[in-house]
Amino acid sequence: MRLSQFHLRTEKETPADAEVVSHQLMLRAGMLRKLAAGLYTWSPLGLRVLRKVETVVREEMNRAGAVELLMPTIQPRELWEETGRWQKFGGQLLKIKDRKEAEYCYGPTAEEVVTDFARQEISSYKQLPVNFYNIQWKFRDEIRPRFGVMRAREFLMKDAYSFHIDDASLDAEYRNMYDTYARIFTRLGLKFRAVFADTGAIGGSASHEFHVIADSGEDAIAYSDTSEYAANVELAEAVSPGERADATETMRKVDTPTQKTCEDVAALLGIALTRTVKSVALMGTDAEGQPQFVLALVRGDHMVNEIKLSKVPGLADYRMATEAEILEHLGSEPGFLGPVKPAKAIRIVADRSVAAMHDFVVGANEAGFHLAGVNWGRDLPVPDEIADIRNVVAGDPSPCGNGTLGIARGIEVGHVFALGRKYSEAMKCTVLDANGKAVTPAMGCYGIGVSRIVAAAIEQNHDDNGIVWPDAMAPWQVAVCLINPKNDANVAAAAQALYDDLNAAGLDALLDDRGLRPGAMFADIELIGIPHRVVVSERGLAAGTFEYRARVASEAEQLDRAALFERLSRR
Amino acid sequence: MRLSQFHLRTEKETPADAEVVSHQLMLRAGMLRKLAAGLYTWSPLGLRVLRKVETVVREEMNRAGAVELLMPTIQPRELWEETGRWQKFGGQLLKIKDRKEAEYCYGPTAEEVVTDFARQEISSYKQLPVNFYNIQWKFRDEIRPRFGVMRAREFLMKDAYSFHIDDASLDAEYRNMYDTYARIFTRLGLKFRAVFADTGAIGGSASHEFHVIADSGEDAIAYSDTSEYAANVELAEAVSPGERADATETMRKVDTPTQKTCEDVAALLGIALTRTVKSVALMGTDAEGQPQFVLALVRGDHMVNEIKLSKVPGLADYRMATEAEILEHLGSEPGFLGPVKPAKAIRIVADRSVAAMHDFVVGANEAGFHLAGVNWGRDLPVPDEIADIRNVVAGDPSPCGNGTLGIARGIEVGHVFALGRKYSEAMKCTVLDANGKAVTPAMGCYGIGVSRIVAAAIEQNHDDNGIVWPDAMAPWQVAVCLINPKNDANVAAAAQALYDDLNAAGLDALLDDRGLRPGAMFADIELIGIPHRVVVSERGLAAGTFEYRARVASEAEQLDRAALFERLSRR
Repeated sequence: MRLSQFHLRTEKETPADAEVVSHQLMLRAGMLRKLAAGLYTWSPLGLRVLRKVETVVREEMNRAGAVELLMPTIQPRELWEETGRWQKFGGQLLKIKDRKEAEYCYGPTAEEVVTDFARQEISSYKQLPVNFYNIQWKFRDEIRPRFGVMRAREFLMKDAYSFHIDDASLDAEYRNMYDTYARIFTRLGLKFRAVFADTGAIGGSASHEFHVIADSGEDAIAYSDTSEYAANVELAEAVSPGERADATETMRKVDTPTQKTCEDVAALLGIALTRTVKSVALMGTDAEGQPQFVLALVRGDHMVNEIKLSKVPGLADYRMATEAEILEHLGSEPGFLGPVKPAKAIRIVADRSVAAMHDFVVGANEAGFHLAGVNWGRDLPVPDEIADIRNVVAGDPSPCGNGTLGIARGIEVGHVFALGRKYSEAMKCTVLDANGKAVTPAMGCYGIGVSRIVAAAIEQNHDDNGIVWPDAMAPWQVAVCLINPKNDANVAAAAQALYDDLNAAGLDALLDDRGLRPGAMFADIELIGIPHRVVVSERGLAAGTFEYRARVASEAEQLDRAALFERLSRR
Repeated sequence: MRLSQFHLRTEKETPADAEVVSHQLMLRAGMLRKLAAGLYTWSPLGLRVLRKVETVVREEMNRAGAVELLMPTIQPRELWEETGRWQKFGGQLLKIKDRKEAEYCYGPTAEEVVTDFARQEISSYKQLPVNFYNIQWKFRDEIRPRFGVMRAREFLMKDAYSFHIDDASLDAEYRNMYDTYARIFTRLGLKFRAVFADTGAIGGSASHEFHVIADSGEDAIAYSDTSEYAANVELAEAVSPGERADATETMRKVDTPTQKTCEDVAALLGIALTRTVKSVALMGTDAEGQPQFVLALVRGDHMVNEIKLSKVPGLADYRMATEAEILEHLGSEPGFLGPVKPAKAIRIVADRSVAAMHDFVVGANEAGFHLAGVNWGRDLPVPDEIADIRNVVAGDPSPCGNGTLGIARGIEVGHVFALGRKYSEAMKCTVLDANGKAVTPAMGCYGIGVSRIVAAAIEQNHDDNGIVWPDAMAPWQVAVCLINPKNDANVAAAAQALYDDLNAAGLDALLDDRGLRPGAMFADIELIGIPHRVVVSERGLAAGTFEYRARVASEAEQLDRAALFERLSRR
């Protein structure tokens, strides 16, 4: 592409109404133009990137044996009634009436449509397994669309749906799609993690989310530094830290007149926060269904995990205890609570880490005092109830048994679900098995947010000068910058020849022949994130070299033609 | 593609609810599955064809210098209010309210959105000319969606919009797009005509429709057999047939007791229909605005053209005369009317052909009688008013001056418009010209019905056995049919090797490895319209030949490998 024949419009200023860096840079690079809330026109530049992502997704889905079809964006209400989702899906479902008052929605997903297709098209086990996918525009009527195409209302999604005669076949395809997604994000040049996920509202048994790692991500992910293991921080298991060591201190009461938090107590005593214990007073329910006071214990540097806590028997609907309830059971005001000698016999739930501590510090159940050198089995009974009730932290051993956990933030860009028979059953989709018996096929569904990937990639790959595209997503791989203040035909011809040769070598090259000053030209090429830049100038021609600079490099290099092509072939 | 890994589902029976052959064949071939009225899922087979069309359109648009972008399907009401089309567009506009009661439509076209984009993106004449296009789903809420994807509600359209500093630039791009469309339809292998069109509701100055020629087409087109000229039959000019010959007969009254039509009179008299004149009694308006009786004359074999008639002075709002008005002015009942000796002085408008007739037959203005041997200037005054008021017929000289007109039926698949400034003016889109003055750019718009082309191509190219795809649109160009009742590994390997070699040679090949009987396999391959079929069988292998048959050929041939590749390379 010759840039003079293209339409590029960049902006120097960061737009005031764009909150996240990907949105800011997409607007500044001129990739997007807002049409209305959550609706964007993809400019020629933006569309080039979107198509590159789409192409990689399509090629890998085809390679995985999935078969592409195309479903309409508009879907009839009747099908959504069959699964009950016309009501259940909620306000994100954009409902539409046509001129005859017939009701439709703009599809936010296509389980109903594809299951309707399958029940008409598939009659025999011989046609299974099959995995239908489509890359089509979807709509979710977000209450607060924001962050540009990261959370747009109209968005491009690859959604795939597989059908299987039995669960073993579904499991195999689930793994196939898992591996395919890993290939897709790897080819796109993105740092990502497959994250074990809750199956949530869409139903089903197994589920993984694929996250692009970026500091600005909405989700915190715990991942092993040596294995594939990753999970949402709130779902990752905190494993037992091993055997408890023997007591080396005697229990003693220490003055903590105003120190009500573990951090303050540790600072006062000059000890590590990891030697303190946080006592959280809750009200749960006992076996008879009566209110029950519970003291949950986590290490001072840990956070209680509400999801895990609610899975402890009797705590499904727990609430924080009131000051009166605390006074009644512990005999103290908040800030000085602890498990040693409570006013009444109470139920104690200790986190696995707490159960393994020795010589620790807890509140003394007396205002202004804590107890130090506390040890299980000597100063208080060894806890009956030991559970995983905390968030994992960086440095924890990975629950998979391999490596140590790190914590990263991620942007969800893909999701694989083993759906089971939820939709095929509701919609009476059956096929004949080898014995001629009608059976309900198992289903999987597999989504990728194609347009969202573009924004997520920028969140992960940018610097002060703009976007830093991975090669596979870049609008062009190489920019040939023509510096030609004197309009010298030789310089122009050399730039054109280099551009032609790069394209002939299979590189997607851009010729910047707009005649801008070098500074403005380079700023544009950096802002729009072209991975490789080659400058063709009179001075370079005279020396027989081109100035090459990788987008990620701090310095340019003077390379002769052979060295330049060698460098670019190493991409 | 190995067919065993694909999803193909054909039907033997013609579906009862499909009216036109393209819809019937698309359903039988399993290209489509109806989701709701005017909404279709494109099966894997159908999508392959749709993508082939889309790719040709995209490649040629890029080659023509147009720049692709992508506009959302959902468009805000505000923009449509700016041009007044929110109301004017009518019931086809699918209006939508979101959860906040904001109003949108599903875009049936995108003049408003692209003009809004341009007025933000384009500020200087230096950015012009530019032609933005997108290939995106559109929606028209047809009252009666029918004929499958020929008149679906959700359809895939390529729409392009160009912006120009002046009319000369618009004219050049109009011609560029005209030529591009011709290249697109030529590459697709379709017989088509560019038809001069009325500019109609969308406004503007120049306009051509591109029609795929097919007997089932909705529009009748007159075209020159030797030039590019083509026009809608109702718009094609009927040129003067030349000088009138001298009289050779005397006028005589003939008995036509029950013969009220030219056909019946000609049959009775044993003369050619071309020697009779049809008299059509109308009421128009005279120069003072008073009702005026007018007798319009066309040759017996011609049809009055209402559009042309309404362009004659005083006939803009004409109506047929009543029997009472006819009796008053001609003194006769209908069926025997003529221009000779009317009861009152009347206005006569003669078609050009009639004005050139001699020795002709007209009604005698007396029930049961006609006049034969009538001649202008002798039996009645030479007509004052001679106009083109008839439809052209096959055999007429082409109004372009080259060749003879033929009449064909066509399906509109493309449209080019020189819009002028209708939208840019209404939406206050301006750019600075070379003098720094704000000017309103001229616009063109250029549409292609991508999904409609698929149906139109079938209307043009089918036979009793199914679809006959042109090579460029075929889902695959060559089908390799593996006949292997004994599951002989050599036969399977030979088919696989041939399939691999065909793909390597740049052909899009299909391997039918489903293991069907030859009859069922061939019926499928013919129904889905694969242009070239090669059979690999044990017998052929033994003889060192493949059985080759073109979809359009009546017989198969036995070819050795070299001859086969030679034949396929000739496509």
